[in-house]
Amino acid sequence: MKIIKLDSESKKDILENLLKRSPGQYEKYAKTVNEIINEVKSQKDQALSYYTKQFDKADINSGNIRVTEEEIKEAYSLIDPSVLEVIRKAAYNIETYHTKQKQYSWFDSEPNGIILGQKVTAIGSVGVYVPGGKAAYPSSVLMNVIPAKVAGVKRIAMVTPPDKDGKVYSGTLVAAKEAGVTEIYKVGGAQAIAALAHGTESIKKVDKIVGPGNIYVALAKKAVYGHVSIDSIAGPSEILVIADETANPRYVAADLLSQAEHDELASAILITTSKEIAEQVSIEAAKFTEQLSRRDIIQKSLDNYGYILLADSMEDAIETANEIASEHLEIITRDPFLVMTKIQNAGAIFLGEYSSEPLGDYFAGPNHVLPTNGTAKFFSPLSVDDFIKKSSIISYSKEALKPIYPDIVKFAKAEGLTAHANSISVRFES
Amino acid sequence: MKIIKLDSESKKDILENLLKRSPGQYEKYAKTVNEIINEVKSQKDQALSYYTKQFDKADINSGNIRVTEEEIKEAYSLIDPSVLEVIRKAAYNIETYHTKQKQYSWFDSEPNGIILGQKVTAIGSVGVYVPGGKAAYPSSVLMNVIPAKVAGVKRIAMVTPPDKDGKVYSGTLVAAKEAGVTEIYKVGGAQAIAALAHGTESIKKVDKIVGPGNIYVALAKKAVYGHVSIDSIAGPSEILVIADETANPRYVAADLLSQAEHDELASAILITTSKEIAEQVSIEAAKFTEQLSRRDIIQKSLDNYGYILLADSMEDAIETANEIASEHLEIITRDPFLVMTKIQNAGAIFLGEYSSEPLGDYFAGPNHVLPTNGTAKFFSPLSVDDFIKKSSIISYSKEALKPIYPDIVKFAKAEGLTAHANSISVRFES
Repeated sequence: MKIIKLDSESKKDILENLLKRSPGQYEKYAKTVNEIINEVKSQKDQALSYYTKQFDKADINSGNIRVTEEEIKEAYSLIDPSVLEVIRKAAYNIETYHTKQKQYSWFDSEPNGIILGQKVTAIGSVGVYVPGGKAAYPSSVLMNVIPAKVAGVKRIAMVTPPDKDGKVYSGTLVAAKEAGVTEIYKVGGAQAIAALAHGTESIKKVDKIVGPGNIYVALAKKAVYGHVSIDSIAGPSEILVIADETANPRYVAADLLSQAEHDELASAILITTSKEIAEQVSIEAAKFTEQLSRRDIIQKSLDNYGYILLADSMEDAIETANEIASEHLEIITRDPFLVMTKIQNAGAIFLGEYSSEPLGDYFAGPNHVLPTNGTAKFFSPLSVDDFIKKSSIISYSKEALKPIYPDIVKFAKAEGLTAHANSISVRFES
Repeated sequence: MKIIKLDSESKKDILENLLKRSPGQYEKYAKTVNEIINEVKSQKDQALSYYTKQFDKADINSGNIRVTEEEIKEAYSLIDPSVLEVIRKAAYNIETYHTKQKQYSWFDSEPNGIILGQKVTAIGSVGVYVPGGKAAYPSSVLMNVIPAKVAGVKRIAMVTPPDKDGKVYSGTLVAAKEAGVTEIYKVGGAQAIAALAHGTESIKKVDKIVGPGNIYVALAKKAVYGHVSIDSIAGPSEILVIADETANPRYVAADLLSQAEHDELASAILITTSKEIAEQVSIEAAKFTEQLSRRDIIQKSLDNYGYILLADSMEDAIETANEIASEHLEIITRDPFLVMTKIQNAGAIFLGEYSSEPLGDYFAGPNHVLPTNGTAKFFSPLSVDDFIKKSSIISYSKEALKPIYPDIVKFAKAEGLTAHANSISVRFES
């Protein structure tokens, strides 16, 4: 990994380079995606059948699109029992953590008969997209489904592309069953998003769509946004490590590579105040890379979006971390909690030398669906919040309305809305 | 207003008719909007100047785009002191209510050294769009800005189109100052959204954009979504009243018209179990309409999207209300709180005969920026939640990681991610 002096110029270049990975650059696929969505809207199941044949080479129709109980049973028979056990432990931890995120309806009242508050209700139905093939991660199923279940969503429909024999990967099916999915459909791509957003004969429309996918899936989600709700649009993975001279360079190097292996657009950045750490991490990263099975992906990712930045001070390191707003941020310093207080923007913050990022990917409980590509400045990790909505509660008595009604009438008239004024004053006409 | 028997067929027709109002139908403007955004991205202030001349007939440049302290002082001298007083009372109520929405960072710890939690931080900078001209509602400024202020947003930049003399309506400026806006710029339309999203010489980029606008503004917000965050896309206003035989038909009629006056696409629906109430509300609505200044808009809105639905039972009425998912829902029945418990989908719920909807528009405190056009099934009122974001907090000790590290390694290997496995196992190499 290259070592670069952190200054305002190098920072500007790096921020620009990282933003090149944004899915906003791929608008050329939007036309295809819109065509697929319109076809599914008008031809429904028939269009799903057509596109699944074209893109996944599988024969899917209204009769076999939904995964059966028998197929799920078969999946359980195929899975390594020790992996199943880890899935269950992870599911337990994820459920425990997300249960603590639950929000409750509240109200406040005044003795003159005013009640104001917010009613919290679960979203009625949710669609979860799960990528097919080699990108089929059971952990991703757990992370997307369990928060919906904890929120109280009644209907959770999963879609995932089948292989050419019309099968879905057993790990995906088992994770779906364990997490509490109510329906599973063998369809992927933009056509699956269109089916969830608009409904077909086999797949009932949902209220919200979540889950990661390729560029077609991401663009389809953006296209149906507003008609249904969506989670934030996922970008390539990132890690940023802030380390001082107390850090273990082997740990830092291993953690950087754990993100770099995700894909060639992944970014791994170390910001350190120690020249020695910078040099040792660079050496260790090179050594590890040679031994790892995904070394080609790692090497490309590091060449394009990997940096070791040498900062003059911890303040500079933190300021830069806030500007980058990384998906994952590890703080491996003498006093990580002190540094944490100064962090404004990050998806997940890992504190101390034993809080390795993959701990959060699989096991600890917090969600691994995190804001990427600088969006931690305004987006949050996927959470129970994403599966609830709120309604304002407003109740006034006559006693409460009477003293203030002239004010409301005045405000309404000042805005030229006389029917608004009338709806208040009619209550006090003699 | 027409009285229709509520059954599955009439319900289907009405739901379809209401959805015709969706901004999704207006994609034909998208090309113009994308051109404007690209121009502002490359030509910055110069593009803002060009479009403001073209659309608003005003001469705006880098030297005069920002509203000065003198202009704000002048606005205060122009405003009716009694209106200013009502603005201040409303601002106080809005701030009081929204302060109760604040969310706090939390953590949970276990004695073996596990700390998990969420850190809540305010979004750094927010842009607020405020429409110009006759649609300039000071209440809208308060409702969009105060929650951001309560959340702790440091930079709140307002944009609003000037009149042809380069002036901004005094009520807007005063409300902005009272609410705590830090910067005001004289620019509107898609060009203003582009400036907030991408930055120009005069207007620094923001992290999130909120506020209502016309179709160009709505499409521009959708286009920049992902690069920045946005609030939900606003549609035409709606009211739905559930009333039984105890309701006062004059109150119900006046409340229906208060939404119908907003614009020709607004919808006003009564669902009642009482034939007598249905008939009397229809008569009262006709009488009021004749007396009201915006009677032409009201009449068109009622003709196209106004309904009085006669339901066989309160259960049917409630079920239909949940399917329509109205922006505003009034419950004027013998026991409104009992009905409220069965409401799944509504932006704001007004209970009892003195909780007239305009009370919520101006004064009570809850936000008047609400999900429209059925989106209350998955969106919430604008709130402090919209101006914060969360970061996961994960800290494990060596003692905590040691017993579970083989599980994480197993899960990572099962997903084929050996660099993930390595970043855990390196911590326990001998």
